[in-house]
Amino acid sequence: MRLRLGMIGGGQGAFIGAVHRIAARIDDEYELVCGAFSSDAAKSKASGLALGLAESRVYNSYHELIDQEKALPEHIRVQVISIVTPNHVHFEPAKLALESGFDVVIDKPATFTLAEAKQLEEVVARTGKSLCLTHTYTGYPMVKQARQLIAEGKIGRVRKVYVEYPQGWLSAFEEGNQDNKQAAWRTDPSKSGIAGAMGDIGTHAFNLAECVTGLSVSQLCADINTVVEGRKLDDDGAVLLKFDNGASGVLMATQIATGAENNVKIRIYGEAGGLEWQQDDANSLIVRYAGKPSEIWRTGGAYNGSFANYNTRTPAGHPEGYLEAFANLYRNFAQTLKAKAKGDKPTAEQMDYPGIQEGIRGMAFIENVIASGKSEQKWTPFNI
Amino acid sequence: MRLRLGMIGGGQGAFIGAVHRIAARIDDEYELVCGAFSSDAAKSKASGLALGLAESRVYNSYHELIDQEKALPEHIRVQVISIVTPNHVHFEPAKLALESGFDVVIDKPATFTLAEAKQLEEVVARTGKSLCLTHTYTGYPMVKQARQLIAEGKIGRVRKVYVEYPQGWLSAFEEGNQDNKQAAWRTDPSKSGIAGAMGDIGTHAFNLAECVTGLSVSQLCADINTVVEGRKLDDDGAVLLKFDNGASGVLMATQIATGAENNVKIRIYGEAGGLEWQQDDANSLIVRYAGKPSEIWRTGGAYNGSFANYNTRTPAGHPEGYLEAFANLYRNFAQTLKAKAKGDKPTAEQMDYPGIQEGIRGMAFIENVIASGKSEQKWTPFNI
Amino acid sequence: MRLRLGMIGGGQGAFIGAVHRIAARIDDEYELVCGAFSSDAAKSKASGLALGLAESRVYNSYHELIDQEKALPEHIRVQVISIVTPNHVHFEPAKLALESGFDVVIDKPATFTLAEAKQLEEVVARTGKSLCLTHTYTGYPMVKQARQLIAEGKIGRVRKVYVEYPQGWLSAFEEGNQDNKQAAWRTDPSKSGIAGAMGDIGTHAFNLAECVTGLSVSQLCADINTVVEGRKLDDDGAVLLKFDNGASGVLMATQIATGAENNVKIRIYGEAGGLEWQQDDANSLIVRYAGKPSEIWRTGGAYNGSFANYNTRTPAGHPEGYLEAFANLYRNFAQTLKAKAKGDKPTAEQMDYPGIQEGIRGMAFIENVIASGKSEQKWTPFNI
Amino acid sequence: MRLRLGMIGGGQGAFIGAVHRIAARIDDEYELVCGAFSSDAAKSKASGLALGLAESRVYNSYHELIDQEKALPEHIRVQVISIVTPNHVHFEPAKLALESGFDVVIDKPATFTLAEAKQLEEVVARTGKSLCLTHTYTGYPMVKQARQLIAEGKIGRVRKVYVEYPQGWLSAFEEGNQDNKQAAWRTDPSKSGIAGAMGDIGTHAFNLAECVTGLSVSQLCADINTVVEGRKLDDDGAVLLKFDNGASGVLMATQIATGAENNVKIRIYGEAGGLEWQQDDANSLIVRYAGKPSEIWRTGGAYNGSFANYNTRTPAGHPEGYLEAFANLYRNFAQTLKAKAKGDKPTAEQMDYPGIQEGIRGMAFIENVIASGKSEQKWTPFNI
Repeated sequence: MRLRLGMIGGGQGAFIGAVHRIAARIDDEYELVCGAFSSDAAKSKASGLALGLAESRVYNSYHELIDQEKALPEHIRVQVISIVTPNHVHFEPAKLALESGFDVVIDKPATFTLAEAKQLEEVVARTGKSLCLTHTYTGYPMVKQARQLIAEGKIGRVRKVYVEYPQGWLSAFEEGNQDNKQAAWRTDPSKSGIAGAMGDIGTHAFNLAECVTGLSVSQLCADINTVVEGRKLDDDGAVLLKFDNGASGVLMATQIATGAENNVKIRIYGEAGGLEWQQDDANSLIVRYAGKPSEIWRTGGAYNGSFANYNTRTPAGHPEGYLEAFANLYRNFAQTLKAKAKGDKPTAEQMDYPGIQEGIRGMAFIENVIASGKSEQKWTPFNI
Repeated sequence: MRLRLGMIGGGQGAFIGAVHRIAARIDDEYELVCGAFSSDAAKSKASGLALGLAESRVYNSYHELIDQEKALPEHIRVQVISIVTPNHVHFEPAKLALESGFDVVIDKPATFTLAEAKQLEEVVARTGKSLCLTHTYTGYPMVKQARQLIAEGKIGRVRKVYVEYPQGWLSAFEEGNQDNKQAAWRTDPSKSGIAGAMGDIGTHAFNLAECVTGLSVSQLCADINTVVEGRKLDDDGAVLLKFDNGASGVLMATQIATGAENNVKIRIYGEAGGLEWQQDDANSLIVRYAGKPSEIWRTGGAYNGSFANYNTRTPAGHPEGYLEAFANLYRNFAQTLKAKAKGDKPTAEQMDYPGIQEGIRGMAFIENVIASGKSEQKWTPFNI
Repeated sequence: MRLRLGMIGGGQGAFIGAVHRIAARIDDEYELVCGAFSSDAAKSKASGLALGLAESRVYNSYHELIDQEKALPEHIRVQVISIVTPNHVHFEPAKLALESGFDVVIDKPATFTLAEAKQLEEVVARTGKSLCLTHTYTGYPMVKQARQLIAEGKIGRVRKVYVEYPQGWLSAFEEGNQDNKQAAWRTDPSKSGIAGAMGDIGTHAFNLAECVTGLSVSQLCADINTVVEGRKLDDDGAVLLKFDNGASGVLMATQIATGAENNVKIRIYGEAGGLEWQQDDANSLIVRYAGKPSEIWRTGGAYNGSFANYNTRTPAGHPEGYLEAFANLYRNFAQTLKAKAKGDKPTAEQMDYPGIQEGIRGMAFIENVIASGKSEQKWTPFNI
Repeated sequence: MRLRLGMIGGGQGAFIGAVHRIAARIDDEYELVCGAFSSDAAKSKASGLALGLAESRVYNSYHELIDQEKALPEHIRVQVISIVTPNHVHFEPAKLALESGFDVVIDKPATFTLAEAKQLEEVVARTGKSLCLTHTYTGYPMVKQARQLIAEGKIGRVRKVYVEYPQGWLSAFEEGNQDNKQAAWRTDPSKSGIAGAMGDIGTHAFNLAECVTGLSVSQLCADINTVVEGRKLDDDGAVLLKFDNGASGVLMATQIATGAENNVKIRIYGEAGGLEWQQDDANSLIVRYAGKPSEIWRTGGAYNGSFANYNTRTPAGHPEGYLEAFANLYRNFAQTLKAKAKGDKPTAEQMDYPGIQEGIRGMAFIENVIASGKSEQKWTPFNI
């Protein structure tokens, strides 16, 4: 049985909403049944009808969606609500949804502020409902394999981490372009929060680093820049990192690397080896050693561990991409919800999706990195 | 409104059926409503229920499926039937489905013999129904871009074509392995036809070469081998090609390239430039020139033509993969059917999927290449 | 002590002569002492003086060079003569040099005809002098490593070989360009012989395939084309191969792949694994397996065998290129000559350079491949 | 006429001395005539004789070399002296050589301290002799091309620079290994100076960044680490950079990236485009744009500017490597010296080698980066 999915945000013209819907469909674990796709009622209606929803279940606002769905019979009403609005409209609908008995998917970053994220953690705990945060890149099978190899000690104690996310799409003043809605809200502090690039892609890089290494950042030193004239938020940053095990790292995220696309990349070096992964070659994981040939581990390789294989659909060499990585989050979340609904304990593979803890750390990253950027002190402790 | 989809074959344990279902779901153009998933009735039932179908619409055979669906009210009965069985069970169900008023998707190669493919062409013409043949690789945006650049004269008259599909998965006697159902039927002449590797992947390479260049093979000279002892069909071949414009080419397809995955690749050289594409870097198209730097055209680049862009879902650098390429076939086919249903002429972009003509040429390739493999004459004309 | 080197051909404006001189210098095993750099005496003189030679040792012809050097005291006269003229001026000077007591380096292909190559073999045997044939690509460390891995059984019995050399520099009628001396003689049957592309680069591909696999071609089937209008020799060809152990292969060599540079590439698949090497990534050798991650073996890796390591100068990751590969031929030849001069048996690593046997096989390749290109018979036995 | 070259350091067992000798030979601009190859007289003698030098010109110390060579007739005595000793023996021999009328090549970093480098600048100015500092990586043709494209405005004003040099060879305590002489002196403060990795490879990365961009670092913020227990100097560091035009950057240099070789890499993004180069693909320069396909500029491409082409020996696709990059420094230095000797003004291409200015900036980098590493202040001005 498919889970009944509702969506808040993601109307016509939006980017990430369509991605969420594809991701939810790929493994057939969800059926979209309702939505409040825009704060503009006419647009919400048009979007919902274009998606084939019954008119009665296309709502004018998230309040209306949650209120009215709650009133529907249990076997009809929505079960999972995806929130794909700009950051300033994450917390309220998530809280309301959870308190109304729905499970929730939120696009990253989790909330508008760290304080909100912490409150959301309390709501999750109190309601007993589940929350999935869509940090896409940790959904890639070879990222999961990297994490597993590190956990198994393949490269020994981690000593150095390089993580980067270079983009070029904001290298000009795109927010001045009427048609670029993505640029408009992502550079607007009232919608995006205190950070631009750091919130939009820095959090992805940060999450990738902590997730794969299993370590936590304990201090950072940031150089945060607004490069394009007239822009209201940062569009570039580089951060020196210290991890709780003593390892050091560098995080680079920029949106002004003209001509760069989305090649998020991570390199991790331990006492006994190194791991390298990048989105441009997403189905390969390079494993390096001292004194032995490097290896190319590949999505679909029978030698991969359970996490990578659980998140792979096709034989090696048939590339799985961004949408499949995203789908892995939705699929695992659904498997977890279904197991719980049956009273079973979900497996580790099923529970393998980011949640509110990752959301809190991501929001703390934003607040700490912006604070560090303004500080004349070299090291800022990673406060939560 | 989603098209109602039925499936013949593709039960539990099959590979390509699941791929078809994902491909059909990605763009939300279809809803799976019925199936005859196996010639084993119990297995068909189990498969259908696992897919969430109503028990009444899981059938014991394709005859039953077609008969009973025909009897359902028009707004309920299946509209498109996907045939994902081994090759020997393509023609009969396709013919029956078309004659019963259904549109049809068939996995490649089209049929068991060339004669069947020609008959199917007649059935398609007579019934006025539509047929889509799933040659996946031409669904990739950058393959479409390559085709468009050639059509626009970017590289001048084509003079040389190299196309290759190296696999290693049959480098041992896998058909002796109980659990390898794919190996079993694909190496069995009673199910696969007269060709093994040439039918399974040689046809993909052949289709890619003809599709991208816009040329037709007119003569060929084949070296066809059965490398693994005990195997009943070819598992390796290399073919010299002559095209109708005087260009020459080489087609290589093998299943005994130990360690190779699925890196299908094409390189085309004309008087003014060259194009190179491969599945391992599916989102890049290399364009070469005399005396100028080579270029890297990328999926999602705003500079791409209408065909590439129509088949792209995400911004450049978020890799789209094999499943999205496959989905492009299903999506375009659906768009075409919907336009026709409305009485509109589908656009060129919508009609951009392989059909029975490609099926006939693929089957002719199989028959000609096997004949050439046995001939002591160098060149065999490409007979249809 | 450096060996005293003389050069025939390679005057100002030539390409390969300068490459030979660099290759001879890199490891300091030779000192250029004399030359007949051109059949034009003034040009020979100018070239020799520019190279810093004593005027007395710059000669007007190769006859003069050999005659006069013979007359010099033993500790002064030339020891090794490099012949870097067009193909039609290989045999005579080589024969004369050998018969006059000099060791000889010849650029490939060995001679103008197969018959000449066989005579040269006889001369070598009769005189007891040594001959090195400069098939550059087998000088690369990772090519040597590939050969060693195969010899050690790493990939099991070889079953499939793909070798290719795509160039684009003759994709237009360059021989019509006054300034393109390379194009002029390489497309002129009176200087190049019966083959164009097949002699110039097909022989390199052929040598690479036989050298690395340790196998011999026993039959071939060639498609030989002259693509550019007005050209007098082939500029494109593809060849199906059969090897003496039953393996099959494909050789592709073209000079009309517009935009292609010099990415000679070989892929070899055996029962247990595969090897892939290409000049564009010359310091990597990809080793593939069934069911295990592929490996990247690198120039300078301590894990490499004795042949690769003997031919490496710098630590891994400092790329060695074409000139170093070429230098390896000169260096090993010098080491062999010096060991012989001392009465020692050269080591296997020292004797690791191509000689007259490779020259005969290369010339036989040319004659057989051109004959096959004209034949209507599919398979032509590899006659010597 | 070849320049007469002498060498200080670089005896048997050393690494970089042999590289200098190959580099000096490749273009035949030098002839090695003398040396003081080791502070151990017997070893110096053995090394010199093995190199074929006359015994009379193999010296026991650099003092002896300079004293005795000065006394030789002008047409015999050494002209250029290469200093390839550990860092603590750079300044004294360089000063003495210059003051004795010889031109000098020094391996990087220039000296032991910044103060010494400044003194050396004064000596150069006073004596009118020339000095070449071997920052190898700026000798690569495609690095020169990157520099030229930036100078010509191809990517607009530079806004972001990423430069990195990840190595893994010191990921264990190699200085404890008797046979690893390189590790021993490079981690010894009495020979290497105040910096380990920062001096050895950080200076290369720094030089590359300043050279290619044409900018100067004005502030930095460094995280400097000694990762391997027992090591006396830094083996890892990451540095945030500010340039004089307002651009920012990140410099990463580490010797504990287990399995990494020597893939020094630079990425530079301007308002109108981006450039990417790395040693592992040294013959390619990726040029990126907003809204256009990226381009691959290649060593040997006729479209390259005068600096790249002046430093290229072979046609595109025949890879030139580390030794050729190194040779470009020696060749250009020789051309400059010869032009000066003739009273000509050397061309810009001839004068294209690093000198004492780069040496001073490199030493300032070392002192500033180590100071910053110890500071609690975020930004340290780049003091000279």
